[in-house]
Amino acid sequence: MRNAYHESLDAITDELVSMSRLVSSMMHRASAALIDADREKAEEVIDADLEIDSINQEVELTATELIALQQPVAGDLRMVVAAMRISATLERMGDLAQHVAKTARMRYPDSAVPDNVRAQFIEMAAIADRMGVKMAEVLATKDVGLAREIEADDDRVDALHRQVLDVLLNDDPGPVNQAIDVTLLNRFYERYADHVVSVARRVIYLVIGERSSL
Amino acid sequence: MRNAYHESLDAITDELVSMSRLVSSMMHRASAALIDADREKAEEVIDADLEIDSINQEVELTATELIALQQPVAGDLRMVVAAMRISATLERMGDLAQHVAKTARMRYPDSAVPDNVRAQFIEMAAIADRMGVKMAEVLATKDVGLAREIEADDDRVDALHRQVLDVLLNDDPGPVNQAIDVTLLNRFYERYADHVVSVARRVIYLVIGERSSL
Repeated sequence: MRNAYHESLDAITDELVSMSRLVSSMMHRASAALIDADREKAEEVIDADLEIDSINQEVELTATELIALQQPVAGDLRMVVAAMRISATLERMGDLAQHVAKTARMRYPDSAVPDNVRAQFIEMAAIADRMGVKMAEVLATKDVGLAREIEADDDRVDALHRQVLDVLLNDDPGPVNQAIDVTLLNRFYERYADHVVSVARRVIYLVIGERSSL
Repeated sequence: MRNAYHESLDAITDELVSMSRLVSSMMHRASAALIDADREKAEEVIDADLEIDSINQEVELTATELIALQQPVAGDLRMVVAAMRISATLERMGDLAQHVAKTARMRYPDSAVPDNVRAQFIEMAAIADRMGVKMAEVLATKDVGLAREIEADDDRVDALHRQVLDVLLNDDPGPVNQAIDVTLLNRFYERYADHVVSVARRVIYLVIGERSSL
């Protein structure tokens, strides 16, 4: 009984880790689709979003069953509750990757990213990748130090987000459809990074909370 | 014991209903701030967002305690889990109201909404209000018929969202800072309406699920 209980707790963590890897891989491919105008990658990401939605529902079911059958308390219960919240956040991150991919597909065979903000988007994409890898690692290991690094990555994304706005406002914004795309894409990356931060903070809270209750 | 149990369940529903009323009132005031360039209303909304964040944390705490102490099962447990998810969605709706209010404040004493999309924003704001009122009612009464009406409201918001994009693309988009504001504001209303739909769907699922398990 005790073993089945811990297996169920581990199963939820495993689901979150693989969900977070899938989301990161979606955003990685969405960025490639965007920057290289790669239509096939865009389609892959758009298709993968259904899978994320179904994993999200599965996490909620697994967590609800675990609560009903095993009645976890204290730190374990808080972990299960946090897992449901994190899963909902990961689902929204999948949506954002899908939005990026749909924008890339809409502009194909052109790139939706004009030359004067290309460097910023390439760097935002690289940081989003790095943040995604760290997030999966934080979920797997509950490494608080690594979770804290994520905030610094987010600061850089915020700075790039402001740079892109500056270019739109003070350099050539290009035709209006391009300015609209850039405005929304800029926001998608900023939101994606914010979500990674919220996952990291939740893990920190979980670990610190557990520690302070020891 | 049985009484305390039902009181706790009712308390969670009450928290969600009052949270949803606060969110609706925030969006109502944010729309007024935007359309009438009313700075005081914008400040009220920006301040209220902290309250929403703290209610969201409270709902999670209340729900976790209820699970730990009362060990609800079946439909009751699913209700408590749904409440946590709905609370997270309401928190994001509060964020969107705050984004609208911040845009209004940034452009004060001008209005961020130019004349050629003013009618669309006035109607989106009115529908957002109506959807918010229905959402609170659905949360309080679990009225599935009313929950289904919400989807039709959302279709209208989507149509207005497309109209605003059309005006930007095919009419005068105005200066670029205005086009950026309109692009984002348009998205904030569309997302807000989507969130109302997701709350309504969750209530429908809860009620239909409960019925089918009877």
